[in-house]
Amino acid sequence: MRVYDCIQKKRDGSVLTAEEIEFIVAGVANDTIPDYQLSAFLMAAFIRGMNPEETAHYTRAMMASGDVLDLSDISPLTVDKHSTGGVGDKISLVLAPAVAAAGAIVPMMSGRGLGHTGGTLDKLEAIPGYRIGLSVDEFRAALREVGVAIIGQTGRLAPADKKLYALRDVTATVDSIPLITGSIMSKKLAAGPASIVMDVKWGSGAFMRTIEDARALAASLTAVGRHMGRKVTSFITDMNQPLGRMVGNALETIEAVECLQGRGPADIMELTRVQAGEMLFMAGRAPSFDEGCTLFDRVIADGSAFEKFVSMVENQGGDAGYLRDVSRFPAAAERIEVRAKQSGFIQAMDSVSIGIASIMLGGGRERSEDVIDHSVGIEVLKKCGDQVAGDEPIAILHASRQSKTQAALERYLAAVTIGPAAPAARPLVVERI
Amino acid sequence: MRVYDCIQKKRDGSVLTAEEIEFIVAGVANDTIPDYQLSAFLMAAFIRGMNPEETAHYTRAMMASGDVLDLSDISPLTVDKHSTGGVGDKISLVLAPAVAAAGAIVPMMSGRGLGHTGGTLDKLEAIPGYRIGLSVDEFRAALREVGVAIIGQTGRLAPADKKLYALRDVTATVDSIPLITGSIMSKKLAAGPASIVMDVKWGSGAFMRTIEDARALAASLTAVGRHMGRKVTSFITDMNQPLGRMVGNALETIEAVECLQGRGPADIMELTRVQAGEMLFMAGRAPSFDEGCTLFDRVIADGSAFEKFVSMVENQGGDAGYLRDVSRFPAAAERIEVRAKQSGFIQAMDSVSIGIASIMLGGGRERSEDVIDHSVGIEVLKKCGDQVAGDEPIAILHASRQSKTQAALERYLAAVTIGPAAPAARPLVVERI
Repeated sequence: MRVYDCIQKKRDGSVLTAEEIEFIVAGVANDTIPDYQLSAFLMAAFIRGMNPEETAHYTRAMMASGDVLDLSDISPLTVDKHSTGGVGDKISLVLAPAVAAAGAIVPMMSGRGLGHTGGTLDKLEAIPGYRIGLSVDEFRAALREVGVAIIGQTGRLAPADKKLYALRDVTATVDSIPLITGSIMSKKLAAGPASIVMDVKWGSGAFMRTIEDARALAASLTAVGRHMGRKVTSFITDMNQPLGRMVGNALETIEAVECLQGRGPADIMELTRVQAGEMLFMAGRAPSFDEGCTLFDRVIADGSAFEKFVSMVENQGGDAGYLRDVSRFPAAAERIEVRAKQSGFIQAMDSVSIGIASIMLGGGRERSEDVIDHSVGIEVLKKCGDQVAGDEPIAILHASRQSKTQAALERYLAAVTIGPAAPAARPLVVERI
Repeated sequence: MRVYDCIQKKRDGSVLTAEEIEFIVAGVANDTIPDYQLSAFLMAAFIRGMNPEETAHYTRAMMASGDVLDLSDISPLTVDKHSTGGVGDKISLVLAPAVAAAGAIVPMMSGRGLGHTGGTLDKLEAIPGYRIGLSVDEFRAALREVGVAIIGQTGRLAPADKKLYALRDVTATVDSIPLITGSIMSKKLAAGPASIVMDVKWGSGAFMRTIEDARALAASLTAVGRHMGRKVTSFITDMNQPLGRMVGNALETIEAVECLQGRGPADIMELTRVQAGEMLFMAGRAPSFDEGCTLFDRVIADGSAFEKFVSMVENQGGDAGYLRDVSRFPAAAERIEVRAKQSGFIQAMDSVSIGIASIMLGGGRERSEDVIDHSVGIEVLKKCGDQVAGDEPIAILHASRQSKTQAALERYLAAVTIGPAAPAARPLVVERI
């Protein structure tokens, strides 16, 4: 088999066989196909697409390029969640301990911030001592003892994806549903959960800007997961404004603690509740989705979800004292109010710009070698549909002396559209696939 | 400007600006764009295409990436010819000296064999001593003194094309009309002729398999040449069987001598005559195409075309004694007859296979480092429309002891289709654009 022929076939819009796709992915994993041929293939696959079978073969081959965890000895009903990324998205920090508190095993491998979106690992690292880099043995032990662990990807998980992603990133071949599906699912499936809930976000702060694109990605993710013998449910959810009130690592961890203590913002609680309900149903901990939701309410109300979070953090070396007394998190040096320039209703929030404003404050990375300041971020005071008076504060920037504060302030202001009438409300959870 | 944005734009089917195309080609020439980004761009350009303006910008930028010869001090009416390549195509060896004998200046930079097609340079190197590697000064002196020179490309001619061609060759992005146009025309225009005749071949031995594809390429070549202020005429010609009777380097040089002496096969003479007529008209040596053709007849008949070939070969260090007595060319060690397996009429000849059979005998390169045996080749005895009796010889293989003779014989036999009725005749020259 020759890679040239595979490129040519995809270039001409033909369907590749399982063997051809495995040949390419194996060539990535063992470095026998040069980058210039891979990028030609990626561009051809981007433009011509891949059908569901090709996408499944591609995902399976990428998964098989590294370690594949088998967690069935720990539980046959492990369950994980994946979000396609948003701004203010601290759902995992609430969801994973809550679901574990209700008796399910939650093996969660998360990522760092990417572009304008925050990363679950960055948020957890705001807790002094928290170790994201568990070995596989430590990860398994954590699942046995605590029932939940949130760690970074091990280096041996889907290494072909890592290399292809780096190439896609510089060749304008990222935004392809089959390629995104392969990238997400190869890693998720390799990490071993029996069931997965997908939170596929759409809107101004999501990678998918329209509901249609989100629906197509959700359908692709679900199909590939089921094709490979896992239970998968995808939710399409709104990401047209930041989730909750906090954007920034320590700020979001504090907000997650508030949620686990039953004091969180309504949108976070709603989104976490439906995902928890589905996960508990999938994991056999609740006889229905609705009863899963009720079980979630109970572990929040009785404090067991919060205590599970404390146990997880302690088990991974974090100082749980910060969770019991969130005032211990270092505050940012400065707080600058962002004030509305006119009165009216907030019509829209460009969440990508709000994510970028947080990065300008030092809360994310512009380049991968940048160091994050966990204390900085944005407190969102007014959200879509809220009425504001002229000059009323709509947000507070938590800034350091190194922050590009003025630029962040202008970026935030430009991201918020204020108009005369209240906008129509949008559902947070659009549909379940 | 970022190459990423240019790739993305072409990926999405947008039209690139002159500046964007110049930026990419400059990045090729000065090695600032990595191969993996170039190959993603090439695949996007292959699939999405480039419009005539983009193709002209691309061609101009590639031309400008190296030396651009100005031959206007030698003559304002220099004229060259380019063929897209075929099997048995020794037209240049007859055409260039004939047109020079009629008073035009012919600065011809040719290529080596590529794939199944032979190369003009390889044919000339069958003449002992012939130097294809003239310096620019030697080239100019040859044009002044002899009026014609056939040389290899100088290393500084369109270096961006050389690099991009190598990348296209391994990324399945060769067969694109805009990319082919840029590759051909950037080199031809850099070599400095005021007028160019294009011989765009279609059929079983050509890169363009259909008349439609050949017509599209011819239109593109003509448009780009004219866009850049040159006179260009394209002929679409038949390449569904080898041209003339000889395939192989020394064999074709001998056949070219026979043509220059007025004893050549009808198809070679017809094709050379129309191209010469057009070149002489373009170069102002004949008041019309028809009178150009008549002038060609005259220089063949009076021996001046042959004498010009002798002068050119001598001027470039070749031993012209071989031309005056072609029996001095070393004969191949063996001659093997290929006999028809059935009686009937020759319906079709797969010329690519015949070109490959010649390479199997040692007459071309399978890899670029292979050494050519100039003595080997194929003598085609029967062509399309000819009647053959069962077991009658249809070709003679001129083979060496190193030749893969049996494989070449089988390949040749498989390439020839014999059927009961005479096929419809096809025009050799299909149209002029």
